[in-house]
Amino acid sequence: MADVDKTADVVVVGAGCSGLRAARDLAAAGLDVVVLEARDRVGGRVFTEVTEGGAVIDQGGQWIGPTQGHLQALADEFDVDTFPTYVAGANVEVRDGQRFEFTGLVPTSDPGAAADTVAALLELDLLAQEVSPTSPWTHPDAAALDARTLADWTMEAVDSPGARNLVSTAVLAVFGCEPVELSLLYALAYAHSGGSLSSLIRTTGGAQERRFAGGAQQLAIRLAEPLGDRVVLDAPVVAIADDSDSVIVTARRARPDGSRTDWTVRCARVVVAMPPAVQSRIAFDPPLPGARDQLAQHAPMGSVTKVHAVYDRPFWREDGLSGQLVADRGALRAVFDDSPEDGAHGVLLGFIAGHADRALEAVGPDGRRAVALDELARAFGPRAASPVEFVEQRWSAEPFTRGGPVACFGPGLLTSAGPALRAPVGRVHWAGTETAEAWTGYIDGALSSGTRAACEVIAAEGRGRP
Amino acid sequence: MADVDKTADVVVVGAGCSGLRAARDLAAAGLDVVVLEARDRVGGRVFTEVTEGGAVIDQGGQWIGPTQGHLQALADEFDVDTFPTYVAGANVEVRDGQRFEFTGLVPTSDPGAAADTVAALLELDLLAQEVSPTSPWTHPDAAALDARTLADWTMEAVDSPGARNLVSTAVLAVFGCEPVELSLLYALAYAHSGGSLSSLIRTTGGAQERRFAGGAQQLAIRLAEPLGDRVVLDAPVVAIADDSDSVIVTARRARPDGSRTDWTVRCARVVVAMPPAVQSRIAFDPPLPGARDQLAQHAPMGSVTKVHAVYDRPFWREDGLSGQLVADRGALRAVFDDSPEDGAHGVLLGFIAGHADRALEAVGPDGRRAVALDELARAFGPRAASPVEFVEQRWSAEPFTRGGPVACFGPGLLTSAGPALRAPVGRVHWAGTETAEAWTGYIDGALSSGTRAACEVIAAEGRGRP
Repeated sequence: MADVDKTADVVVVGAGCSGLRAARDLAAAGLDVVVLEARDRVGGRVFTEVTEGGAVIDQGGQWIGPTQGHLQALADEFDVDTFPTYVAGANVEVRDGQRFEFTGLVPTSDPGAAADTVAALLELDLLAQEVSPTSPWTHPDAAALDARTLADWTMEAVDSPGARNLVSTAVLAVFGCEPVELSLLYALAYAHSGGSLSSLIRTTGGAQERRFAGGAQQLAIRLAEPLGDRVVLDAPVVAIADDSDSVIVTARRARPDGSRTDWTVRCARVVVAMPPAVQSRIAFDPPLPGARDQLAQHAPMGSVTKVHAVYDRPFWREDGLSGQLVADRGALRAVFDDSPEDGAHGVLLGFIAGHADRALEAVGPDGRRAVALDELARAFGPRAASPVEFVEQRWSAEPFTRGGPVACFGPGLLTSAGPALRAPVGRVHWAGTETAEAWTGYIDGALSSGTRAACEVIAAEGRGRP
Repeated sequence: MADVDKTADVVVVGAGCSGLRAARDLAAAGLDVVVLEARDRVGGRVFTEVTEGGAVIDQGGQWIGPTQGHLQALADEFDVDTFPTYVAGANVEVRDGQRFEFTGLVPTSDPGAAADTVAALLELDLLAQEVSPTSPWTHPDAAALDARTLADWTMEAVDSPGARNLVSTAVLAVFGCEPVELSLLYALAYAHSGGSLSSLIRTTGGAQERRFAGGAQQLAIRLAEPLGDRVVLDAPVVAIADDSDSVIVTARRARPDGSRTDWTVRCARVVVAMPPAVQSRIAFDPPLPGARDQLAQHAPMGSVTKVHAVYDRPFWREDGLSGQLVADRGALRAVFDDSPEDGAHGVLLGFIAGHADRALEAVGPDGRRAVALDELARAFGPRAASPVEFVEQRWSAEPFTRGGPVACFGPGLLTSAGPALRAPVGRVHWAGTETAEAWTGYIDGALSSGTRAACEVIAAEGRGRP
C-alpha cells in the first residue's frame, strides 16, 4: 500500500455545517477525525462577510424558523442571538411593470390570481403531507408523481396565469430553479421536510422568520473551533479510494510555491458532506455505482446570486414598506429587508435565480448591478438606485458549490435511484443538507444530516459515545 | 512557473472519435499535439469487444446512415466495409404483455395508436425543421419551446396513450432518457441535426442503416495509429490551469507500484473532447464561468445498458422475423438483429435505458440477464432464453462517460446558457459529439466537432495547413 501523509479513524470531506456537525459527533464518540475543506474558510453555503463600510452580510444561508430544532439548539449553545426578519408595513408587488402594495403572504393586485395562488399553495401543502420526506418513493402514486414536473402540475391545477407566475416566483426563491426543472415528487417531499410549502415561503412563522445577530457563519466557525487543526482548509479532495479494508482520501494541498501536491489520509471510513453535483467530481475508486452517479447528474444545483444593496438607513420603512418585493418577471423576483436589527443602516437583499441567473452572467457584475438597482428603484423609489455599497455573491461561479441554494432533482430519479441518496457505498457515507430527513436544503437539515452520517459511522465502527 | 513533464502546442483531452479527429487535424496543420486519454483504450463511446466465443460486439456506437459524410469518408479512407443492418421479415411488438408482428417503422396492433404515432412523428419533424441545430436559441419561440419538456408536448399533441408510449420508446432508444428529461427545444434541435426525428429512429434510410464489418472501434484505432505515442492512455486529466499565456494540463498517470502521480503538460491551447457531464469533473483554474458549469450540470448523460445475446445462429430469421422488437414497457424497449453479415452466428442487441436502467442496477448482472432473456423469449420464442453467450455494457458505471449514448439537456438551459456550449473559455476549446453542429450525439457529429475545434485552435494560433 502506498505511503500516506496521515491516518485517522474518519475523514469528513467538507467543512460546511453538515461536515462540521458530523465531525463534532464523531470526535465526541472518541473517534479521531480529520475534516478536509476545499475553501480557505469553513461554513460551505453559510458565509458571512463584512463590507468595507462595515455591513454584516450573509452571502449564503441566513435564516432560522420554527421547528428548526437542530439549528436553534446550536444557536442556544453558542449564545448566538436571533432577531426577527423585518416585516412591518406593506410589501410591494410588481406585475406587468406596474407597482402595487399588499400585506400578507400573497400579492393581491389581481384578486383572481391571489385566490388561485392560495388555493394552489393549499393543494400543494395537502399533497405534500402524503409524501414521506425520507422515502418519497414509497408513495402509492410515486411513479406518476415522479414522472411529472412541478410545472406540469401547475399547468393542470392552476388556472390563472398570474397564479402560475406566483408559484414560479416562490419556486425560484426556494429552490433557485424553475418549476419545470423539479420532479413533482421531489418538490412535495422537500416541502414536507420543512412542514409545508407555505412554511418554506413564509417569513413570520416560516423558514425566513429570524436571523442571526452577527451573521450565520459564526455557528460554523464555533463548531470548528474545538476541532482545531483537525479541520484542514484549502485542501480540496480529489480522490477517494476504498480498498474495503480502509480508505485513502487524497486532497490537493498548496505548496509554498503556489503549486499543489497530493496529501493523503488513510482512514476507516469517510463522510462526504457536499451536494451531489460536486460529490460526483471526486474520483472514486472503485467508481460509484451507475445509479448513484446518475442520481448526482440529475441533481443540478439551483442557480442563484444573492445581491445586497446597502443604504445609510432603511428608508423604505419611513414609507411604510417592509422591504419585501414580489415580482412577476425580471432579475429580482424576491427581495427582503436585510438590515441589522438596530436599523443603523439599511440593507435590501435580492435573489437572482434560475434562468435569469444564468442569462445574466454575460452582462457582468456592472450589468447585474444596473439591472438590480433599476428594479429596486421601481419598487422602492429613486433612493434605492443609489446605495452606499452593492455586493453580489454568485454561487454558480463558486467552484466548490456550483450553484445554490440546493440541489434540484429532476423527474424520474427518486423512483429509480432515490434510495442511493443516503445509502453508504462501501466505507463511504453521505451527509449534506440534500440528504437530510427534515428541513432538506436548510442549515437545520445540514446539521441533522451530519449527525445521521456520524451515527452510521459510529455504529459501523462499533464505538458508542463514551 | 512550476516544472512540467512535457510541452506541446495543443493538448487534446479524450481519445474518443472527436478528440482523435481534432488531434489529426491539428497535427496535419503542423502543431505538436498530445492526446490524454483516461482509459486504457481509444474510442470513448465507440468500443468493440470480441467475446470468448469469437463474436464481435459493439458495446457503444455502431451504426452509420445516410448524410453521415464525415464518418463515411473515414470508413472509405481506412477501407472499412459497411453492411446493412438486417431488417428482412416482420418486427415484433409487445404491448400490454401481448405479442404482435408488424412491418415498417411503427407498430400496428393498435391502429389508432399507429396513426397517432405517425402523426406525432410528422409534427415533430416539421417543428424540428424550424429549429436551428446550431443555435436553437434564435428561434422566435425559443423561450417557450425551451420552457417545456418533450413529455409536455406529447401530452398536449398526442391523444392516444399508446402513441405516447411509442414516442417514449423512441426517445429512450435515441437519447437513453425519458421524454420528461428533455427540453423540447433541445430535442427538436437534436432531431434536426440528424435530419429529422424519423431519420434518427429508422434503420433503412436512417441512423441505424448500416454497420461496420469488424466493429466501429477500428476507426478510432486507425485514427490513433499515426499519432503514435502522442496518444497517452491511462492518463485521466484532473486539472486544467489557464494562466492566459499558456495552459498546464495535469493527468494522473500510474506508477509501477499501482499508485498514481501527477503528470503535467504545458501547452498553448487545450481541446476538451468529452461530454459536458464529465468535463465538469475536471478542476479548472480559473473556475469555469457559472453559466458554463450550470449548462454541464443540466446535461446529464442518458442512462443506457447495451445487452448482447449470442446464439449459434440467427434462428428468428427462420421464423420470418427481423430481430427487431418494440415494447411498451419492461427493460428492453428496443431490440435489433446484431448478427455478423454472414450470419455465422446470431446476435440480438437490446437497450435498457432511462428509468429502467437505473432501477435495474440493484438486481445485478444476473438479474438483468434473467429479465432480458425473459423478454427476448417472449418476443422471439423459447430459443431466445438460452444464448450461447450474454454480455452487457453498463455505460452509467463507466467512470469516464457515466452514461450514454448522449447528454440530455433539460429545459431552460439552451436559452439561458446555450451559447456557452461551444464558446472557448480562455485557451480551452470544446469538442465532443454534444457540441456537434450536425448529427449531434452520433459518431459523425463527434468527428465534425473535432474538426471544428481544431479549426478554432489553428485560427487562434495563426497557423494554417502546411
